[in-house]
Amino acid sequence: MSETSFEIRLKTSAAEIEACLTGILGESPQTDEIARPAPLLAAMRHGVLNGGKRLRPFLVMESTVFLGGDQQAALRVGAALECVHSYSLVHDDLPAMDDDDLRRGLPTVHIAYGEANAILAGDSLLTLAFDIIAAPETRLPDRQKTELVLALARASGIGGMAGGQALDLAAETSAPNEAAIVTLQAMKTGALIRFACEAGAIIAGSGTDERRLMRQYGETIGLAFQLADDLLDLTADAETMGKATGKDAARGKGTLVSLRGKDWTEAQLARLVQEAAALLEPFGERADILNETARFIANRNH
Amino acid sequence: MSETSFEIRLKTSAAEIEACLTGILGESPQTDEIARPAPLLAAMRHGVLNGGKRLRPFLVMESTVFLGGDQQAALRVGAALECVHSYSLVHDDLPAMDDDDLRRGLPTVHIAYGEANAILAGDSLLTLAFDIIAAPETRLPDRQKTELVLALARASGIGGMAGGQALDLAAETSAPNEAAIVTLQAMKTGALIRFACEAGAIIAGSGTDERRLMRQYGETIGLAFQLADDLLDLTADAETMGKATGKDAARGKGTLVSLRGKDWTEAQLARLVQEAAALLEPFGERADILNETARFIANRNH
Repeated sequence: MSETSFEIRLKTSAAEIEACLTGILGESPQTDEIARPAPLLAAMRHGVLNGGKRLRPFLVMESTVFLGGDQQAALRVGAALECVHSYSLVHDDLPAMDDDDLRRGLPTVHIAYGEANAILAGDSLLTLAFDIIAAPETRLPDRQKTELVLALARASGIGGMAGGQALDLAAETSAPNEAAIVTLQAMKTGALIRFACEAGAIIAGSGTDERRLMRQYGETIGLAFQLADDLLDLTADAETMGKATGKDAARGKGTLVSLRGKDWTEAQLARLVQEAAALLEPFGERADILNETARFIANRNH
Repeated sequence: MSETSFEIRLKTSAAEIEACLTGILGESPQTDEIARPAPLLAAMRHGVLNGGKRLRPFLVMESTVFLGGDQQAALRVGAALECVHSYSLVHDDLPAMDDDDLRRGLPTVHIAYGEANAILAGDSLLTLAFDIIAAPETRLPDRQKTELVLALARASGIGGMAGGQALDLAAETSAPNEAAIVTLQAMKTGALIRFACEAGAIIAGSGTDERRLMRQYGETIGLAFQLADDLLDLTADAETMGKATGKDAARGKGTLVSLRGKDWTEAQLARLVQEAAALLEPFGERADILNETARFIANRNH
């Protein structure tokens, strides 16, 4: 089957992000006096330069295009966001957390570089994200940089992704109800996806209404992303996914799919795609890519 | 022996920082929809609200006073810096890193709350640091916030503290020479202390010359801090320090004290105090507190 123009666009954007991150993690030291230890740099590169789909940066870039913001700035912010996403995977894979040996078909960072380097590589990737946003190479007014730093920190910290991961670990022993699962997922995966879309509005210097719209769009596709992920965990095999699957069930972790079933989940995914389309309806064709993104997220099979 | 006015000033500033951090880590959730998981919040509080000397925030505040900047902003930036310092201790204490059970006479975070929560608490404290700087409650122009975010990220990441910790772990098996030890220490502990002093110049909106001066002052007292620390590790007992001592020697870690001896180290400390004084000489009495701080750091016995 030939690739759709959407898939080509996604791949092109992923290649741009890969090149941007490769530049940042390959260039000469950022200050004159201070070295970058080779094993730590290698562990960071292993954690982030891994050929991922780069869906979050894609969302930053397409949201920015949609609202008419600067593409080069969006690329840098997308790279920063991917550093946060990658750090979270490096830490989540640690023995004390999800204890995974394999990610995208490769050894996880602590398997390849040891636990201490994996902890420090995650820490350094998280730190680097804020470095990238604040750096002079990101050509945005300081007002927008401050807003991006704040929104990214809120999406990533105890009230966002890290808090969601804490709830997720607790859920292994506590059997959360449906409301608790929704909160957990909104924090663990939803917050970064929402940030990705909101970032486009911040980069474009949009007003309150458009910023709220992008948050709503981000929340909607974030829910779809998680439902599709849970569905895949249940149905896909490890080879397709490049990581262990069926782990939620094996750990007794409740998901909405396990509570409500496959049919409900598929209907819910269709409903979320329509909800995104309704939000974007006033923008007509300008919103085509964002609509296609929602469909891609809801229907992805890997 | 009665306290000196310097010691009272240090304690007053520590109490202000403690109150600021307690407010930030105790208040209602930062967004309407999203919860802050209780065990993770408790682990963060355990990691940062521990009655430390708060030397780094003190340096931010006194550097800001010295250059005439806003005290309330300095307090917030000091709190952010203490979050970074505290996160580094939480992660350094982990079994895969220095494997310490005790800090300031209390169980370390992973002993009290488990390894997973300790990893996430460290991650969340690091993230919170950037949140605090960027938040509206920190009343500074966006230009200065961006500079603070960038300088803090550079001081904390692979080119600073985290990179220094990676070198430190490698040093357990590699017996670094004197130059390598100097680099390691400049990154692991020097970078944050230098940032603390530079932050005062950023908050005050100082020009290039004063900012460079504060960096030099910070580097000088950072060296003194590390030498005094190594000396203490060799000579103090665990009860005075509230943590295990003699560990450097037990691990075969080289320090400048072990390479050069106690007499050289004490002479070097005196020289660094004079060097700081020479830097500050043009400012006369205005620099009294910064000079006293250099002496305090060089002569501290716990």
